Amino acid sequence: MERIPILKMGDLLLVTIQVDMHDQLAMTLQEDLTERISRTGAHGVLIDISAVEVVDSFIGRMIANIAAMARILDAQTVLVGMQPAVAITLVELGLTLPGVRTALNVERGMALLQAEVRSSSPVVASEADGDAEG
Amino acid sequence: MERIPILKMGDLLLVTIQVDMHDQLAMTLQEDLTERISRTGAHGVLIDISAVEVVDSFIGRMIANIAAMARILDAQTVLVGMQPAVAITLVELGLTLPGVRTALNVERGMALLQAEVRSSSPVVASEADGDAEG
Repeated sequence: MERIPILKMGDLLLVTIQVDMHDQLAMTLQEDLTERISRTGAHGVLIDISAVEVVDSFIGRMIANIAAMARILDAQTVLVGMQPAVAITLVELGLTLPGVRTALNVERGMALLQAEVRSSSPVVASEADGDAEG
Repeated sequence: MERIPILKMGDLLLVTIQVDMHDQLAMTLQEDLTERISRTGAHGVLIDISAVEVVDSFIGRMIANIAAMARILDAQTVLVGMQPAVAITLVELGLTLPGVRTALNVERGMALLQAEVRSSSPVVASEADGDAEG
C-alpha cells in the first residue's frame, strides 16, 4: 500500500511530499501523522513540498487540515521548500493556507520550530524550580 | 520534470525515496546529489528507503553507485529505514550493498554520521593547535 513516509528527527517529524496526492493518500497521511504525533509526543511537523510543482485547493486544504490536527495534538506545522512558482500561483489564485507557517527550507523550518519549542518550555523549567525549593 | 528532493540538514543531505525508480530518475538523482555535495561540502548522505517495498538489483546498484560517488567527494552514505521484508529479500537474493552502511532509522543514521565526522575532524583541530602555538 502506498504511504508517505514520516521521519522522526528529535522532537520533530518530517514529511516529504513527492507524489501526486489523491484522496486516499491524503487520508492515510493524516491518520499516520496524527498517530505518530500522539505516539512520539513530537512538538513540530515539517512538510517539505520542494518537489511539488502544483499546489491546488485540494493540497492546500490537506495541508491546512494537517496543521489543524497537529495543533490540537500540541504540535506546530511549518511548510518548507515551496517553489517560487507555487508561491506566485497561490497568491494569484487567492489560496491561503490558514494556520500554516512557511520557511524557505528544512534547515530554517527546523530552526523556527526549535526556537518555538524553547520559548514555550520555561513554564516547565519554573515548575521544576518550584519543586526543588519545596 | 520529476525529481527526488534533496534536503540539506546541517552537514548532511537527506534523500527520501518514495517513488519507483527508473533509469532517468536514478541518473537525475545521481547528478543532483553529486552537484549538491560539491556545492554544500556535505560530509554525509542519508538515503531513507522506508517507503520502498522492493529493493531489486537495479536499486541496489543505484545506491551502491551513489555511495561510491559520494565517497570520492568525501561524503559518507548511510542507508536508513529499510523494511524487515526488504532485508530478508536482499539476503535471500544474495544482493549486497558494497560500501553502504545501514542504520535502523534517520535518527540513528544521523548519529552515526555525526560521530564519524567528529572522529575524523581531530586532524583539523590539532593543526589549529599547532597554529596557536606557532
